[in-house]
Amino acid sequence: MTLAETFARRREASLDLIQGLDAEDMVVQSMEDASPAKWHLAHTTWFFEQFVLKRFDPEYTEFDPHFNFLFNSYYNSIGERHPRPERGMLSRPSLQRVLEYREAVNASVLERLDRGFAREHGVTGTITVGLHHEMQHQELLLTDILHALSLNPMVPAMVEQPSAIPTFSTGEQRFLPFDEGLFSIGATDKGFAFDCEGPRHQAFLRAFSLARRPVTNQEWLEFIEDGGYTEPTLWLSDGWARCQQEGWSAPLYWQQIDGDWVQFSHYGCQPVESDRAVSHISYFEADAFARWAGARLPTEQEWEVVARQHAIEGNFMENKHWLPQAAQASGIQQLYGDVWEWTASPYMAYPGFRPAPGAVGEYNGKFMSGQYVLRGGSCVTPIEQMRPSYRNFFYPHQRWQFTGLRLAKDS
Amino acid sequence: MTLAETFARRREASLDLIQGLDAEDMVVQSMEDASPAKWHLAHTTWFFEQFVLKRFDPEYTEFDPHFNFLFNSYYNSIGERHPRPERGMLSRPSLQRVLEYREAVNASVLERLDRGFAREHGVTGTITVGLHHEMQHQELLLTDILHALSLNPMVPAMVEQPSAIPTFSTGEQRFLPFDEGLFSIGATDKGFAFDCEGPRHQAFLRAFSLARRPVTNQEWLEFIEDGGYTEPTLWLSDGWARCQQEGWSAPLYWQQIDGDWVQFSHYGCQPVESDRAVSHISYFEADAFARWAGARLPTEQEWEVVARQHAIEGNFMENKHWLPQAAQASGIQQLYGDVWEWTASPYMAYPGFRPAPGAVGEYNGKFMSGQYVLRGGSCVTPIEQMRPSYRNFFYPHQRWQFTGLRLAKDS
Amino acid sequence: MTLAETFARRREASLDLIQGLDAEDMVVQSMEDASPAKWHLAHTTWFFEQFVLKRFDPEYTEFDPHFNFLFNSYYNSIGERHPRPERGMLSRPSLQRVLEYREAVNASVLERLDRGFAREHGVTGTITVGLHHEMQHQELLLTDILHALSLNPMVPAMVEQPSAIPTFSTGEQRFLPFDEGLFSIGATDKGFAFDCEGPRHQAFLRAFSLARRPVTNQEWLEFIEDGGYTEPTLWLSDGWARCQQEGWSAPLYWQQIDGDWVQFSHYGCQPVESDRAVSHISYFEADAFARWAGARLPTEQEWEVVARQHAIEGNFMENKHWLPQAAQASGIQQLYGDVWEWTASPYMAYPGFRPAPGAVGEYNGKFMSGQYVLRGGSCVTPIEQMRPSYRNFFYPHQRWQFTGLRLAKDS
Amino acid sequence: MTLAETFARRREASLDLIQGLDAEDMVVQSMEDASPAKWHLAHTTWFFEQFVLKRFDPEYTEFDPHFNFLFNSYYNSIGERHPRPERGMLSRPSLQRVLEYREAVNASVLERLDRGFAREHGVTGTITVGLHHEMQHQELLLTDILHALSLNPMVPAMVEQPSAIPTFSTGEQRFLPFDEGLFSIGATDKGFAFDCEGPRHQAFLRAFSLARRPVTNQEWLEFIEDGGYTEPTLWLSDGWARCQQEGWSAPLYWQQIDGDWVQFSHYGCQPVESDRAVSHISYFEADAFARWAGARLPTEQEWEVVARQHAIEGNFMENKHWLPQAAQASGIQQLYGDVWEWTASPYMAYPGFRPAPGAVGEYNGKFMSGQYVLRGGSCVTPIEQMRPSYRNFFYPHQRWQFTGLRLAKDS
Repeated sequence: MTLAETFARRREASLDLIQGLDAEDMVVQSMEDASPAKWHLAHTTWFFEQFVLKRFDPEYTEFDPHFNFLFNSYYNSIGERHPRPERGMLSRPSLQRVLEYREAVNASVLERLDRGFAREHGVTGTITVGLHHEMQHQELLLTDILHALSLNPMVPAMVEQPSAIPTFSTGEQRFLPFDEGLFSIGATDKGFAFDCEGPRHQAFLRAFSLARRPVTNQEWLEFIEDGGYTEPTLWLSDGWARCQQEGWSAPLYWQQIDGDWVQFSHYGCQPVESDRAVSHISYFEADAFARWAGARLPTEQEWEVVARQHAIEGNFMENKHWLPQAAQASGIQQLYGDVWEWTASPYMAYPGFRPAPGAVGEYNGKFMSGQYVLRGGSCVTPIEQMRPSYRNFFYPHQRWQFTGLRLAKDS
Repeated sequence: MTLAETFARRREASLDLIQGLDAEDMVVQSMEDASPAKWHLAHTTWFFEQFVLKRFDPEYTEFDPHFNFLFNSYYNSIGERHPRPERGMLSRPSLQRVLEYREAVNASVLERLDRGFAREHGVTGTITVGLHHEMQHQELLLTDILHALSLNPMVPAMVEQPSAIPTFSTGEQRFLPFDEGLFSIGATDKGFAFDCEGPRHQAFLRAFSLARRPVTNQEWLEFIEDGGYTEPTLWLSDGWARCQQEGWSAPLYWQQIDGDWVQFSHYGCQPVESDRAVSHISYFEADAFARWAGARLPTEQEWEVVARQHAIEGNFMENKHWLPQAAQASGIQQLYGDVWEWTASPYMAYPGFRPAPGAVGEYNGKFMSGQYVLRGGSCVTPIEQMRPSYRNFFYPHQRWQFTGLRLAKDS
Repeated sequence: MTLAETFARRREASLDLIQGLDAEDMVVQSMEDASPAKWHLAHTTWFFEQFVLKRFDPEYTEFDPHFNFLFNSYYNSIGERHPRPERGMLSRPSLQRVLEYREAVNASVLERLDRGFAREHGVTGTITVGLHHEMQHQELLLTDILHALSLNPMVPAMVEQPSAIPTFSTGEQRFLPFDEGLFSIGATDKGFAFDCEGPRHQAFLRAFSLARRPVTNQEWLEFIEDGGYTEPTLWLSDGWARCQQEGWSAPLYWQQIDGDWVQFSHYGCQPVESDRAVSHISYFEADAFARWAGARLPTEQEWEVVARQHAIEGNFMENKHWLPQAAQASGIQQLYGDVWEWTASPYMAYPGFRPAPGAVGEYNGKFMSGQYVLRGGSCVTPIEQMRPSYRNFFYPHQRWQFTGLRLAKDS
Repeated sequence: MTLAETFARRREASLDLIQGLDAEDMVVQSMEDASPAKWHLAHTTWFFEQFVLKRFDPEYTEFDPHFNFLFNSYYNSIGERHPRPERGMLSRPSLQRVLEYREAVNASVLERLDRGFAREHGVTGTITVGLHHEMQHQELLLTDILHALSLNPMVPAMVEQPSAIPTFSTGEQRFLPFDEGLFSIGATDKGFAFDCEGPRHQAFLRAFSLARRPVTNQEWLEFIEDGGYTEPTLWLSDGWARCQQEGWSAPLYWQQIDGDWVQFSHYGCQPVESDRAVSHISYFEADAFARWAGARLPTEQEWEVVARQHAIEGNFMENKHWLPQAAQASGIQQLYGDVWEWTASPYMAYPGFRPAPGAVGEYNGKFMSGQYVLRGGSCVTPIEQMRPSYRNFFYPHQRWQFTGLRLAKDS
């Protein structure tokens, strides 16, 4: 596929996601961590306008001079930005105008690609970054709108649940052993990777064992029933403080109605099904669960050396089943898709890491404090975004992503 | 005019106000004090559904069972309510659905009025309260959307400024003397009044004098230039704390651009014109200004005994000039319309006050602490809402209404 | 008694109060509203040093140049001040040094009084203000230390309870009628009064009736048991919000242990005795109680016209019984002493009020917003501070003073 | 030295530290992160009472039943605790009583050690933990009181500066190279170590180079003058937010007076001397400085493999020079003492880590999120506490410890 084709297809995919939404839904910012759907559509467009069109084509006329201020997210070097917590104030530009912005920028990019602009200005790499950035925001758009709708007492479904999804019965949990050794970690030179996935380097790992599938809703219920949320010695100190402060007693979006557990989803309220992988838990909860289970979270290196031996398959965004599924077979399962897996690894620079120069380089390095690495992607991650070296990161208290866990043990 | 005609006309007036707005604009809640425009349209409708249709007609079928929870504002006795700070999360019900709600409830009320429902059930009074309540929310809708748009860096105009508004040159300020005496204060039996405007009672007033017109922008600029915002001895203790904390240095919506003062309005940014009455100031600012000017704010009783000698005329909402005008003639001016006038009077019960029984009685009495009375109405107040005894009330730090001041002196 | 004698005696009285306290107790600031005991001792001394010695005697040498910054409380015109919430950081100057400061300033003042300084410089009035200010801080010292000790899990008693205090049985509540009329309100020219107690002016009062004694603990328990703290329609809107936010379910310092109510006091934990006047309630609670009881709070004018017909007697600080007593006889009781009585009157300027010029004038006028007037003094008020026109004021949510209520009714 | 002798000597060392302090100084809690000096003295005593006396001797009579509640710091498994932010409310127990508590517990422990209690009950290890815990609190006592005194506008010196401290001129900075390899990291079996220092494990390190001495005040001034505190691209995202929010523009305790930089210290305000190691900087500042300098922070593993080749010597608490000194010679300097060195390593479990069982095991593992490792000890660390494997940890925004940095580079 040509770069232009990839560009067109990937940009189009963003619009597929808003089929179930009104313009009004797309204004709402439900918390500082989330952004309005309309903002995601505009911000991803701004990326191409800023880093491709404006930077390399002096002839290009800015679509709207306000938009650089409004839709820059965190690039301090590009100038003043609209404050993040006020994104929900942006009733204007209207959705209609943002869609026009997308079309205009798409046309400008495609027209230039047609006449060899990418090669001429060496922006193939930047466009590729932009498309991976777009995929990240596709996932965020879906998780942010889920959070916004979850606050509506009318419990609206964003879309209808796809019919005929088979539910499988997940077999017993098992731990698979892996030997100690000196391993190469991080992205290889083949294919796209963000700067933080490299440089490739050696790390010594002790022998360990890894669970063959993520923790299920059923197992999480056992944790709840055994008092997992009320026993401080299971928790990290910061985790327990957060648990108390926010009154956690189950995963985000879970609610017990007349004794039955239900879960808010893109399909409205759905029963909590036993065999699905648990999701919408924080690092703090994952860590407490692991301690309760006599296990621990894997490090990101452990996860990576196992996962790279497996094909990238699973329940991803394109599947349109936006609830984690149950493991469907024996052997190691669901390394990719369904739920992001919290690792025990703080998000930090790999040995020898240097951020990419220029504003694009603000992208990853500046977030390297206070967050934890998650691996493998979720049911709302675009599949093309996934690779064994991909490092996602969130703060340990955050729960609005499709975040779950897989256990590990020293062996 | 029949009650039905008044009902139809007054309800229609709310829809006139949203001509310049998109559905998206009407979702936004810009602060806890304000509500989304869509919410105002629904809440005023809920009043009639709750207190007229549901209360008196067992046959009536609720439009949507969610709406009682969502659109009750502060009536604790009617049951649980949606939390006020989360009104901006309500992307749904859509504007379309809220407009259907209005139409359905209007039709239900009108159809019942047609067949003598008001007389039969004695609800004429309640409907009248509901229409005055609607007028209050018409004003709030306009001031709340102004605040929301003011936070948008694109500085959008909600509507185009009406052309050909003459600007007058305001003459000198003068103070008119009034004698001491025992006066009757509060609403008479003629015409509608809220419970808090009575009972009519006697109050002894010392001799005083009252400024012939409100303070102007030009006078406010002199206060600014003389250091009014930086001299603590001019301020109440709580006022100075608030001034420091929020960084006040001019009225809300004022901004100095390249040396020139401009003011955000429904017409976008407009120059601060010298002779217009100043607006968007807090009680704390009004009080500091009065002290600086060697004067004081009038009490609400002083205002009332003067104002009731004058006809209710002025620049009101219907005029569609939503910026305070300049005083246009000699003699006492602008008692009504243009700007609400802060008085020195805390909002409290008149001697002998009893709240109306039932939930409607929660309406006024429960707010009788911490607020100050304002009198006379503003350029976005419906004229039919105004009368000499009308008591508006806000907290002393609030600034998003069209609030100004008129000076008084002991004489 | 000469001014010098009064000065010496009144200043000495402050030191009587700290008999039960260690230097360590006197460092603690338990909340922003309260100050450390040591700070009270220093601040009242600063008043005399600043407004008498430094202002009128160029020969006077400041005791310590740091103290003007540290012990100025709210006089913005005297220069920068140490931030109020950080008073608990002042381990230094030590108590020892503060006592030396008191002695030095006392000696300087007395020595000057001896040689006619007061007459010569016209500072008799300022010294008198300073002594009334000292009395106010004597009460605050006692209520602030009570609050600080109440936070100590060891439940320490500050002093031993005086033995042999007779407990009386309070008779039935009754309401005494008073006629309407035009009354003179405010301080007369005789004797000392703060500026806010004047000017004397006329006010028209409707007929009303006033309870013969304050509300008792027993009556408050009935309010609790009848759900007074859980029924929102009894409360002001701001009061209900505060009640929820702070989790009020009884007066401050009350606690139920094994079914029995106890009350923290200067004597440690004591049983809540039925017939004592209830204390440590906010305005919001007083107002809710009155509504529950089918009554209302009196205005400050109503209280004053009744109280000025009675002698100033009662249970005051000097009595050293620092718990409100029970009404001991028939007829109107306890207008003075025992508990401050919340009135329905916001603290505002009387007609014609002008603050005293100069920094001392910052004293009262600047607090005239958001607070309510209390009348009559409490069991920890120095008796000489009391007079019928005395206006105390607190915010409606504050509870750490000995605040109670007396009911009134329209009649 | 016998265990009893070590116990007596180490416990005595805590009392040496409070020579310059009044009882009043020891009440103050200046922020939630800090504790009153009195509390440190009591809490370290509580450790021995709780984990040695009460746990192993049924005959032992608790000194005061309140103290378990008051002086437990974070052991959730030992029962309810007094809330940390309220430690400054504890005017009682008095210092006198706390000193009696220390004496009584010391005597009880020593008397039991005398008769073979340690061997009999196997508590030698627990007592050793308790003494290392005591050393940690000795350092905290000194840094917490420094913070408390720093808030006093009188700028008090806690103690007099020892005379005749030679100041050396630090030579040029240089980076020393170290080879890549597989290294053993963590505590060996010899001597005491906290659980988090093990298990000893292998880690692969790339070649790197390490600065021969910490960054100096002079170098930090260059960072300031070059705009280090105003250039967001130098900072981590969370760091920049914190810098803005708290208004950082220099290390904590630095102040510019009439153009000269001074630094608050245990000796009052002292000039910022060029060649001393910079201290009182956060991780965020250290990280920004390193980026500005074209370098990075070392990992804790890098630091450890270098430091274990050097003797543990330097400027420690016992030296009584409680300001970092200047590097005094060529070669690698100041690895130990003077300033804690921030490393790039988040504080996390070593491979194979298991917390010690029982309440003592709550001690380290539960803090393994959100903090960074510091190495080497400071000028207020007891020298016996130091070893190459010692891992201190603080949150990246914290600045009140003697924290500095040493640069590293990839090589």
